[in-house]
Amino acid sequence: MEITRWAAAVEYVGTRYSGWQSQQHAPSVQGELETALSRVAAHPVAVSAAGRTDAGVHGHAQIIHFDSPSRRSPYAWLLGTNTHLPPDVSLRWVQAVAPDFHARHSAVARRYRYVIHNSRARSALLSDRAAWLAWTLDEQAMHRASQCLIGELDFSAFRGAQCQSTTPWRCVTDIAVWRRNDFVLIDIRANAFLHHMVRNIAGTLMEVGQGRQSEAWVAEVLASRDRTRAGMNAPAQGLYFVAADYPAHYGLPAAADFWLP
Amino acid sequence: MEITRWAAAVEYVGTRYSGWQSQQHAPSVQGELETALSRVAAHPVAVSAAGRTDAGVHGHAQIIHFDSPSRRSPYAWLLGTNTHLPPDVSLRWVQAVAPDFHARHSAVARRYRYVIHNSRARSALLSDRAAWLAWTLDEQAMHRASQCLIGELDFSAFRGAQCQSTTPWRCVTDIAVWRRNDFVLIDIRANAFLHHMVRNIAGTLMEVGQGRQSEAWVAEVLASRDRTRAGMNAPAQGLYFVAADYPAHYGLPAAADFWLP
Repeated sequence: MEITRWAAAVEYVGTRYSGWQSQQHAPSVQGELETALSRVAAHPVAVSAAGRTDAGVHGHAQIIHFDSPSRRSPYAWLLGTNTHLPPDVSLRWVQAVAPDFHARHSAVARRYRYVIHNSRARSALLSDRAAWLAWTLDEQAMHRASQCLIGELDFSAFRGAQCQSTTPWRCVTDIAVWRRNDFVLIDIRANAFLHHMVRNIAGTLMEVGQGRQSEAWVAEVLASRDRTRAGMNAPAQGLYFVAADYPAHYGLPAAADFWLP
Repeated sequence: MEITRWAAAVEYVGTRYSGWQSQQHAPSVQGELETALSRVAAHPVAVSAAGRTDAGVHGHAQIIHFDSPSRRSPYAWLLGTNTHLPPDVSLRWVQAVAPDFHARHSAVARRYRYVIHNSRARSALLSDRAAWLAWTLDEQAMHRASQCLIGELDFSAFRGAQCQSTTPWRCVTDIAVWRRNDFVLIDIRANAFLHHMVRNIAGTLMEVGQGRQSEAWVAEVLASRDRTRAGMNAPAQGLYFVAADYPAHYGLPAAADFWLP
């Protein structure tokens, strides 16, 4: 029986879920996906993902893989699975991949976006889809302050207490803070991330953006390796897993444009 | 006791509501607003709106007015009311206006946007925030076909069965169909709209966009004044009340950029 390995991109609104990962007594995105894929496959399907996201964090193009001996076209997997998924989870594409592809181990980088709605009044349409901050942020100061985080560095100061990684070292290749109208966006790309790392960085840069801390303070926090020195863990609702990058020979589709804001 | 008239812009996700207008046994946006404003005012507040929207239709900048003898700053109204509103309704600004201002009667035009997510796979993040159509639309054909709807015309063919207007004549001043990435947008501005008029026009233009009807067919439908000739009533979830226009002397803020998509 020939088994095919499939890759897929998953989009989800994290609000209703305890997070990406399957849990015993709480709804998870992984659980919804495995249930829907199993129905289309007509056998139990297990999925692996490029990155785990926490409760309330959204997925723009989370990448997964799964194996199945069932003969289905990519389009049949796509439409069939979406029919069985709840409205707040969807597959955006499905594609056969080489048997050695692994959504987690083959990924060379992950990309996140943190979205801040920077406006005097909160937005109903963006409720649970962005963080809201009434105080006008200096996004250029945030950008300058963020550049010290690029490199192969010890991110202990931005590491969540429950982080299970064996090492606090990660390699951030890009970080950009920019504004579009009422939105301040933090785009960050790294080989991998520690638990709560993006939200801790976002909370720290927001201190600088509000003028409560100097631009140089971010480098001091980083050098301290002390989590108690950094800013708050910014709210989950502002965070999006945007994409994962893989070696070109796997031939995965490029990540679609992020539509929000 | 001096009474001040206030104008405000309201943003809302229509999904949970039976529509704009207060009803006996169903949640409405108007009902939520009157409850929240009454708490800030410390007396019962009634609101009038630029336009009524149906169940599931969203508001980007619905305009309302209300009267109150209570002394509150605009910012106190804004933040206080938003504190008492559910997450899917918010005020975006509040401003004192001349006593003769009326959100409905003073409006010289209303603007709606119909949002179609035109993609092979449905989007979880846009669930309930856009219509979804997998078939690739020819938005340029839709735009050309739509131009016959500009003018002071009898829109009987696009009028909902429950429309209570005394006349089927409306004056459409602008209509544009355009594409941004995976989205096809229908922007329409008129002095006022009949019940279901925008959604019936959207459904009709989608027939043209899918090549099921010719561009000239839209003018035939219009001329027929026969509702059974038009396309389907497009889903409520794609429709946004974007803004209302008022004479400049009232000094209301310009409508903010529409952030989606």
